[in-house]
Amino acid sequence: MMDMPIPDAMVLDRRDRIIAGLLDLLPAEAVIHDPMETRAYECDALTAYRCAPLAAVLPATTQEVAAVLRLCHAEGVKVVPRGAGTSLAGGSLPTADSIILGVARMRAVLEVDYPNRFIRVQAGMTNLSVTGAVEEDGFFYAPDPSSQLACAIAGNIGMNSGGAHCLKYGVTTNNLLGVTIVLMDGTVVELGGAHMDAPGLDLLGVVCGSEGQLGVVTEATLRILPKPEGARPVLIGFESNEVAGECVSDIIKAGVLPVAIEFMDRPCIRATEAFAKAGYPDCEALLIIEVEGSAAEIDEQMGLISQIARKHDPVELRESRSADESARIWLGRKSAFGAMGQINDYMCLDGTIPVSSLPHVLRRIGEMSRDYGLEVANVFHAGDGNMHPLILFDANKPGDLERCEQLGADILTLCVEVGGCLTGEHGVGVEKRDLMTAQYDPADLEAQLRVKDAFDPKWLLNPAKVFPLDATASRRAA
Amino acid sequence: MMDMPIPDAMVLDRRDRIIAGLLDLLPAEAVIHDPMETRAYECDALTAYRCAPLAAVLPATTQEVAAVLRLCHAEGVKVVPRGAGTSLAGGSLPTADSIILGVARMRAVLEVDYPNRFIRVQAGMTNLSVTGAVEEDGFFYAPDPSSQLACAIAGNIGMNSGGAHCLKYGVTTNNLLGVTIVLMDGTVVELGGAHMDAPGLDLLGVVCGSEGQLGVVTEATLRILPKPEGARPVLIGFESNEVAGECVSDIIKAGVLPVAIEFMDRPCIRATEAFAKAGYPDCEALLIIEVEGSAAEIDEQMGLISQIARKHDPVELRESRSADESARIWLGRKSAFGAMGQINDYMCLDGTIPVSSLPHVLRRIGEMSRDYGLEVANVFHAGDGNMHPLILFDANKPGDLERCEQLGADILTLCVEVGGCLTGEHGVGVEKRDLMTAQYDPADLEAQLRVKDAFDPKWLLNPAKVFPLDATASRRAA
Repeated sequence: MMDMPIPDAMVLDRRDRIIAGLLDLLPAEAVIHDPMETRAYECDALTAYRCAPLAAVLPATTQEVAAVLRLCHAEGVKVVPRGAGTSLAGGSLPTADSIILGVARMRAVLEVDYPNRFIRVQAGMTNLSVTGAVEEDGFFYAPDPSSQLACAIAGNIGMNSGGAHCLKYGVTTNNLLGVTIVLMDGTVVELGGAHMDAPGLDLLGVVCGSEGQLGVVTEATLRILPKPEGARPVLIGFESNEVAGECVSDIIKAGVLPVAIEFMDRPCIRATEAFAKAGYPDCEALLIIEVEGSAAEIDEQMGLISQIARKHDPVELRESRSADESARIWLGRKSAFGAMGQINDYMCLDGTIPVSSLPHVLRRIGEMSRDYGLEVANVFHAGDGNMHPLILFDANKPGDLERCEQLGADILTLCVEVGGCLTGEHGVGVEKRDLMTAQYDPADLEAQLRVKDAFDPKWLLNPAKVFPLDATASRRAA
Repeated sequence: MMDMPIPDAMVLDRRDRIIAGLLDLLPAEAVIHDPMETRAYECDALTAYRCAPLAAVLPATTQEVAAVLRLCHAEGVKVVPRGAGTSLAGGSLPTADSIILGVARMRAVLEVDYPNRFIRVQAGMTNLSVTGAVEEDGFFYAPDPSSQLACAIAGNIGMNSGGAHCLKYGVTTNNLLGVTIVLMDGTVVELGGAHMDAPGLDLLGVVCGSEGQLGVVTEATLRILPKPEGARPVLIGFESNEVAGECVSDIIKAGVLPVAIEFMDRPCIRATEAFAKAGYPDCEALLIIEVEGSAAEIDEQMGLISQIARKHDPVELRESRSADESARIWLGRKSAFGAMGQINDYMCLDGTIPVSSLPHVLRRIGEMSRDYGLEVANVFHAGDGNMHPLILFDANKPGDLERCEQLGADILTLCVEVGGCLTGEHGVGVEKRDLMTAQYDPADLEAQLRVKDAFDPKWLLNPAKVFPLDATASRRAA
């Protein structure tokens, strides 16, 4: 009996009842259930996977989110929280029996407090508009993922997003002071706030980066910082990846804290140079290092960096002397992903490694690339060991995507082997759920699953993400 | 039947069986059960509360800790984890039916990695000896609680300890990269590590500051930093607390990041001056601000701070010009607690407030102090709003301690009312468990209790701490 298909009429009844329930709670325009319209929510930025949801809802307040979750909890409906849908790991991919709960209509600034350096916002605000709300007064919000024009603070919190500035300013968890989160049963919980520390168990840390597994974040209190007086980049070319990697290690070891250390290898330099013509030198590896602060601070840090770099016999060392020159130095790096897209399909990986393993990891990636016959271009935030290898493939060539995915899994497993991590800032999502067993042994994973149990006992939130499916089968069935 | 006292013989049987079990697992010298010897563990630095444990054990390895916890879990024995016993909040106060699990014998350095800037240690190492292990090579471990000579890393992690340097370097959670933790059932779990970020749920954040509620931390991977080239303090006197508070706000707002901003009010200045004769000016409020870095960085930051301070008409502004002068400036501040102990019994509170509330909170504390007829001296880390008001009382005067505790509760409730927090770095322990309802509403607290359930379903770990007893009665009985 249990394995018999559910009659269509029953499915329809249930779907209709759920949609009618949602329409009782929200205005009609906030409940999207026409199959033509739900297709807008069938994927995020990991477009290889698609599935239209049962419906999508766009509540405007914490109370509306709570009402939706109470209904879904009572009906046993799965819920996929969604920020702006920019996840590269399939973090907001729906299942056919789930509803999408989007925060796109929740974009208000609730409070700005300069003396205490925080802003409180609804979680649907885009990353860049948070800085937009305070920049006239000389402040900014530090985490700056590449997608910052589009991505929502809710998603940044879900994935613990970083960006080019995170070497100096940390990632989202270092800039997040508090959240309002709605649990699956509709309970509204306040975590953290605009004060230092929290008594009892600090649940804010486990919520940040939890990929929608624990609840729906509706409001966030964020640290804002005074804008630095100025910034200046230097471009340094090297004759091998090893030497460039050693230079990064030496800079970090010396205690200099640049705001960014970006690394590009030869395949990446070539492609971007052909595309953006930024005047990069023809070399094996290239670093772009940016420092910021007052003129005196910039001069001092830049002097120290140049001194260290010169010990590694750079092919070129070009310190910016003007705003124009700074823009040209950054031009190639900022065009890197676009340049790759011009010449190939590519898959963008995201893993972290100890900074000192950089030369070894790059050498091994080179060997794997040859074994698979797929080119890999490396462009990444080298200062904190957050790698973004781009695997180039041809989507029209049968089997190429599968080989690309296998190579990606091998590279991420290598990251774990050298003491690194499966993800730096993109999250696990559906993309890397089966690799979690490479990072964690069963006891480590079980501790995480128990916390998930505590927040979402019916396992209704963001189904089939983050955790390996076979490790969670018994829980999801319950 | 249920309420009948358990016959002594049965109690004795159980106690003997537990001790025999522990002696099977550990060398005899690591199992302390003679009532004369267990008294050494009857309290921590909150000496007003005392209770000898059933026994104390001092395992030497993670495996021994796991074996002890497996036994206690099977027998239903409560376990109180203990670092060095320096908690000011009664964080390691035993109950008569619990065993103390101390990490004092676990003091080995396991790994030092300068290129990747981390050290891995057994969790019983003292805070200062971590710096001791790396300082010859020019590195240090940043969190520096006042008790750093004695306190253990395990306790620092349990309480998320800070210190004078935490304005610049953050507290323990910002410098902790990973832990090995043993859960109550004996499972060994690895959280975090020497890499950036963690896939899945980041349990490291919730373990840091969890006051021994979730498991026993046996090893820790800690961030180490290169020592700054130099440091210089300035002493600034003001004619009112309000003006000093505004000066702190303006410095933070300007984006200067001193390594410490310490604040003392008149009662504290007077007492320390009488005791230490540091040559402090006779004024209402005094700031000691220290900056660090290269000579150029120090000059620049110091210039900016002096410029801001002069706008607030300081009574005195004394920038240190020598190592001798620096030592004299710090002398009074470092003697403050000792000076108070000379003239009175005192209770040291620990709460946080938004920096901009400083003048208001100091005014209200003054009013409360008059209402209660108990003097309050304020000395605290003003830069991040972490207050340590000292309430002076006479332990020999009947009722004085009780009034002191009531005034302390009122001051901490005030911290919460202005948007702050019950504890900055000392933890909740037994001292503040009943105040948790001032900070959290029932739903917020329930979320924490569910996480505790997930890690320690039988509620055996560090009993009767952190959470209000009536909110946890049903769970503890289960």
